[in-house]
Amino acid sequence: MKRIAIDMDEVLADALGEHIIRYNRDHGEAITKGDLEGKWLWEIVSADRHERLEGYLRSEDFFEDLPVMPESQRVVKALTQRYEIFIATGAMEFPNSFGSKFRWLRRHFPFLPPSHFVFCGDKSIIHADYLIDDQPLHFRRFSGTGILFTAPHNVQVRSVRRVDDWLEVECLFL
Amino acid sequence: MKRIAIDMDEVLADALGEHIIRYNRDHGEAITKGDLEGKWLWEIVSADRHERLEGYLRSEDFFEDLPVMPESQRVVKALTQRYEIFIATGAMEFPNSFGSKFRWLRRHFPFLPPSHFVFCGDKSIIHADYLIDDQPLHFRRFSGTGILFTAPHNVQVRSVRRVDDWLEVECLFL
Repeated sequence: MKRIAIDMDEVLADALGEHIIRYNRDHGEAITKGDLEGKWLWEIVSADRHERLEGYLRSEDFFEDLPVMPESQRVVKALTQRYEIFIATGAMEFPNSFGSKFRWLRRHFPFLPPSHFVFCGDKSIIHADYLIDDQPLHFRRFSGTGILFTAPHNVQVRSVRRVDDWLEVECLFL
Repeated sequence: MKRIAIDMDEVLADALGEHIIRYNRDHGEAITKGDLEGKWLWEIVSADRHERLEGYLRSEDFFEDLPVMPESQRVVKALTQRYEIFIATGAMEFPNSFGSKFRWLRRHFPFLPPSHFVFCGDKSIIHADYLIDDQPLHFRRFSGTGILFTAPHNVQVRSVRRVDDWLEVECLFL
């Protein structure tokens, strides 16, 4: 059975959407995902607000109630019939996120065993055939095949296999 | 550079020692590691106390102040000069342990970057050349070479490369 490792933020969970909501609310702005083509949120926010921007990610509740990416639950469940599915999420930059990320996965993907959750930093440690991730840097030393999940910051990335949403993941693997 | 993944409990941290101390204190017993040859602690404790025994591991502070295994800090630091070192710890059974395990690693192994910490369950997800672990079951599907770190419960395990302590790890790799 081939193994697929799946990233959380921007792939299963809409962390960027929540980040924008909190930033707009506190600063009276109206940033949308459309403003972020090829950029990270911190790139379009003035430098004096970067600390505040990162602070949202460090708060204990940030990862608790993130919206689930459309169709991801149905497609991941279908994938478990044909592949070994692991969740590989970069959590070490935000240790406060461990508990909320774990609970979020249990709540929204209850059919995945916790033994298949991996909280890590450098994803070259992941032993899998495929890694679905929005950050191409994780593919550099990954031993399998990287599948780039489209997010605003990566739309200009070329020369990598890309999927735009979970329906495309379904087409690719099922 | 070859990569070595290192388990935490019973390899870097003396979790069993702390477990025995808490159990003896609360039950007026005098169990020692010597009583545990070839056995887990729950195997020599009466069934009506198993829940209590597991409860210790679920408490938030259990993993906070565990003693460091002798010579492990010095040898791991030396290993970082010649190998890529990752810490791979089974944490998903005890989600309350995430924070304390992270702080323990930062406190006692400050020279390791958090990006090289991996909190996981099924260690077949680890991509490394070697895995130093006290639980032989983790070697079954591991793609590299397993090195069994001696602990009371595994003394009868045969046909696997074994080290008894960190001085033997030093001899093997340096």
